[in-house]
Amino acid sequence: MRPITTGVGASTADAIYVRGRDVARELMGNVGLGEMAFLLVAGREPSAPEALMFNAALISLADHGLTPTVLAARLTYTGAPESIQGAVAAGILGAGSVYLGVTEDTARYLGEIIARAGSDEESALADAAKAAVQDTADSGARVPGLGHGIHKSGDPRTARLYELAVRAGGDWPHMRTLKHLQAAAEERYGRSFPINGAGTAGAVFADLGFPPRVARGLVLIARSAGLVAQVYEESETPLGHGLYADVESNIVYRPRPEPR
Amino acid sequence: MRPITTGVGASTADAIYVRGRDVARELMGNVGLGEMAFLLVAGREPSAPEALMFNAALISLADHGLTPTVLAARLTYTGAPESIQGAVAAGILGAGSVYLGVTEDTARYLGEIIARAGSDEESALADAAKAAVQDTADSGARVPGLGHGIHKSGDPRTARLYELAVRAGGDWPHMRTLKHLQAAAEERYGRSFPINGAGTAGAVFADLGFPPRVARGLVLIARSAGLVAQVYEESETPLGHGLYADVESNIVYRPRPEPR
Amino acid sequence: MRPITTGVGASTADAIYVRGRDVARELMGNVGLGEMAFLLVAGREPSAPEALMFNAALISLADHGLTPTVLAARLTYTGAPESIQGAVAAGILGAGSVYLGVTEDTARYLGEIIARAGSDEESALADAAKAAVQDTADSGARVPGLGHGIHKSGDPRTARLYELAVRAGGDWPHMRTLKHLQAAAEERYGRSFPINGAGTAGAVFADLGFPPRVARGLVLIARSAGLVAQVYEESETPLGHGLYADVESNIVYRPRPEPR
Amino acid sequence: MRPITTGVGASTADAIYVRGRDVARELMGNVGLGEMAFLLVAGREPSAPEALMFNAALISLADHGLTPTVLAARLTYTGAPESIQGAVAAGILGAGSVYLGVTEDTARYLGEIIARAGSDEESALADAAKAAVQDTADSGARVPGLGHGIHKSGDPRTARLYELAVRAGGDWPHMRTLKHLQAAAEERYGRSFPINGAGTAGAVFADLGFPPRVARGLVLIARSAGLVAQVYEESETPLGHGLYADVESNIVYRPRPEPR
Repeated sequence: MRPITTGVGASTADAIYVRGRDVARELMGNVGLGEMAFLLVAGREPSAPEALMFNAALISLADHGLTPTVLAARLTYTGAPESIQGAVAAGILGAGSVYLGVTEDTARYLGEIIARAGSDEESALADAAKAAVQDTADSGARVPGLGHGIHKSGDPRTARLYELAVRAGGDWPHMRTLKHLQAAAEERYGRSFPINGAGTAGAVFADLGFPPRVARGLVLIARSAGLVAQVYEESETPLGHGLYADVESNIVYRPRPEPR
Repeated sequence: MRPITTGVGASTADAIYVRGRDVARELMGNVGLGEMAFLLVAGREPSAPEALMFNAALISLADHGLTPTVLAARLTYTGAPESIQGAVAAGILGAGSVYLGVTEDTARYLGEIIARAGSDEESALADAAKAAVQDTADSGARVPGLGHGIHKSGDPRTARLYELAVRAGGDWPHMRTLKHLQAAAEERYGRSFPINGAGTAGAVFADLGFPPRVARGLVLIARSAGLVAQVYEESETPLGHGLYADVESNIVYRPRPEPR
Repeated sequence: MRPITTGVGASTADAIYVRGRDVARELMGNVGLGEMAFLLVAGREPSAPEALMFNAALISLADHGLTPTVLAARLTYTGAPESIQGAVAAGILGAGSVYLGVTEDTARYLGEIIARAGSDEESALADAAKAAVQDTADSGARVPGLGHGIHKSGDPRTARLYELAVRAGGDWPHMRTLKHLQAAAEERYGRSFPINGAGTAGAVFADLGFPPRVARGLVLIARSAGLVAQVYEESETPLGHGLYADVESNIVYRPRPEPR
Repeated sequence: MRPITTGVGASTADAIYVRGRDVARELMGNVGLGEMAFLLVAGREPSAPEALMFNAALISLADHGLTPTVLAARLTYTGAPESIQGAVAAGILGAGSVYLGVTEDTARYLGEIIARAGSDEESALADAAKAAVQDTADSGARVPGLGHGIHKSGDPRTARLYELAVRAGGDWPHMRTLKHLQAAAEERYGRSFPINGAGTAGAVFADLGFPPRVARGLVLIARSAGLVAQVYEESETPLGHGLYADVESNIVYRPRPEPR
């Protein structure tokens, strides 16, 4: 069998290592779960400002109430209460392109604008954002990270993340670019576009150095905490059976015309 | 449609709430992911000593290298790299009774000993632990939380959690009971039984007030961080194809005798 | 690396084998999917009467409309339409103890009655069924395989499976025992107890020689066909977004009292 | 709550319906699992030749031995033997773009060639296939449905499906187009390209009228049968623990350089 090289974790008789740190002696008691998640995925500890922003972004994504993915998890528990992991996994599976892809898509889109600008100066970023919005509009696609179905006049998480970035200090070029993107979209479409929280989290993750395709994974870490809480609530005060009954009494069965 | 009551999270036009706290204004920037997970599942914020122990226990469970569940996640990525959530979900699905059930089983077993003792005084706990070990041994079952396949002379996470409990202060009756359980098992079987880390985490979760069946859910939160890191590594330096090739060249195909 | 012995399937440069049969030359064009599933799991081809009963039992379990597991699958698709496999997997995950465990539980329970009877003669089976019902009632548990929430005056699948068993010919001792079980329960509880279809399918699988714990797996094969149809319908005429909106407008958010 | 319209299945007190057919009275005993799957997904019963081809294509996809997805399912069982559905779901999750996407991709690619040809005459199809291969080669992409890692000199399932199409009678334009595609690719690249079985199955499904994106779902139905057999074998003669041990003894832990 060929050797298998890994850099994440390993166990010996005396120790467990994660990214080369001794979990028991160096990490437990010294860092929180957020810092551990950063270390696991990034391969290095975050600085204090990085940890502030990373934790805040994760917390903003952990739970938004009874969303479709949460309903899927809780309905899975209805049929299989013996397997908490199955219900949580069902909720993880719905964390796809529609709701949580926004974080990844925004991170990628902002990175492309920065590359296009060739500089992180404000005017260059503003120009590149305008050009990107133009291209996206021309192609009939949507600009990611802007607008929200519920928080129509402003996503409370967005304002908070920008406020925390000031507290954290340092430079957050993807976050700056996202503001230029908003301005460019508002100018192009002639209406206001609040930056949504999922998009801002994408900008934060990108500024922390995570590749866009890893951003969706980070969302899953945050979501798992919300899903465990939701599945636990389902075990105490279930909604699954009642929801099923409500659905059942509102079904219109129309087997024809046939779907093909 | 009947009303659906929930206490976990909710969104309004202006705010997102988790357990009645305003996520943007009260939580982001003020708490870490570990504290958020505690709040989500327990319905209240942890005290500082509680957060210390909760984070430490979660961190101890996040990643142990290339375990079967990690291999399942990475092999799932091999076939479906378009779906990070699918690979992470596959890893979550393996977090069942064999490896991670220990945390839940130990929490439950210790709770039963404490109930049996009818008091949390040392001598009563010691007697109840002896009686429990006796019953378990008589029934041919295994005492949970003791022994480890790799950390044969002592699990480094166990020592660390006990050390941190001293730093945290306060009383940790399930952790105390686990020591009595170890002593009772060593006396009964005439050999040493190191307390394993998964069992100690179960004692910590129980002392923090979480019901045993929630303990496995808490493990999933910690594991999701490890799984995202592992799936990310798979996308960079894959092991799936090579492992498949190694398996393939070692297969002995024996279609008979038939398995029924 | 140690050799890995398997008897299910294998590929060579020239052929694919399943249970020792050449898939292309011996199976494709000669058997249907039901016979293939039987061969895969049992390790041998079914006889014609066995195939009749096996297919009928699987068909009876394939789809029952918008059940909780189907809703979970469709809501998963709502968030992750890029991953059909994720939506189907979510539906599979809900096929647990509550709805589909009945098939396994009934198969096991009937096997225990037959073992207790020590003979498959009618009078011995009747006596053993009575004794089993007595024990189950005394322990406060429920007798599996009887009663149905919707088909209160008789499950149409049950009558059909018994009719087909006559057509198939031969002896079906678990099916016979299930009739004794029904009679014993009706006598014990003084009311009518229709045999449900899931329980009858469990009796059929047991009579076909499948161990009880494999019965739940067989249900999953049937369910996967229903789930693919349901997820396809979701992609054409979605219910996920509307159901989410209905849920959202009926939420009562009560973050306190706290759940612990 | 708004009405929910569905055409797949429904239950009443007296009957279960699938696509408007009474499951107990019209389907059980009259059709096999393959025909049921066709009815569920297509919304109509297959003709006998359609059923022949549909069953054969499904059977060709059911199991190919210890592939990465099967290993993922079996390793999931290692950690969570209490949840057969979790292990099967893990196997389903790996049925993504790499291995099983071929079926969908080929169906779509062939449909585009037929649309481009504007006719299903041989010479038009041949020309359109040549143009498509040219475009694909120019863009640096791969032509789907051709070549196989193991069946290098010809996939046995392909020959069989073409043979069965002759037996079935009628016209199979996607299958015809696939032959033109092979010829065009062989001419363009100057080497032989066997048509693989997964691609041929895609052509069959397309000729049966299924949209390309449904093709991957059909693969999942077939795979579920193989996965249940594999998980059952894992419960009898496990490979998970041994494979884990082999991996463990071949790990090279290299936590640095860090992966970002």
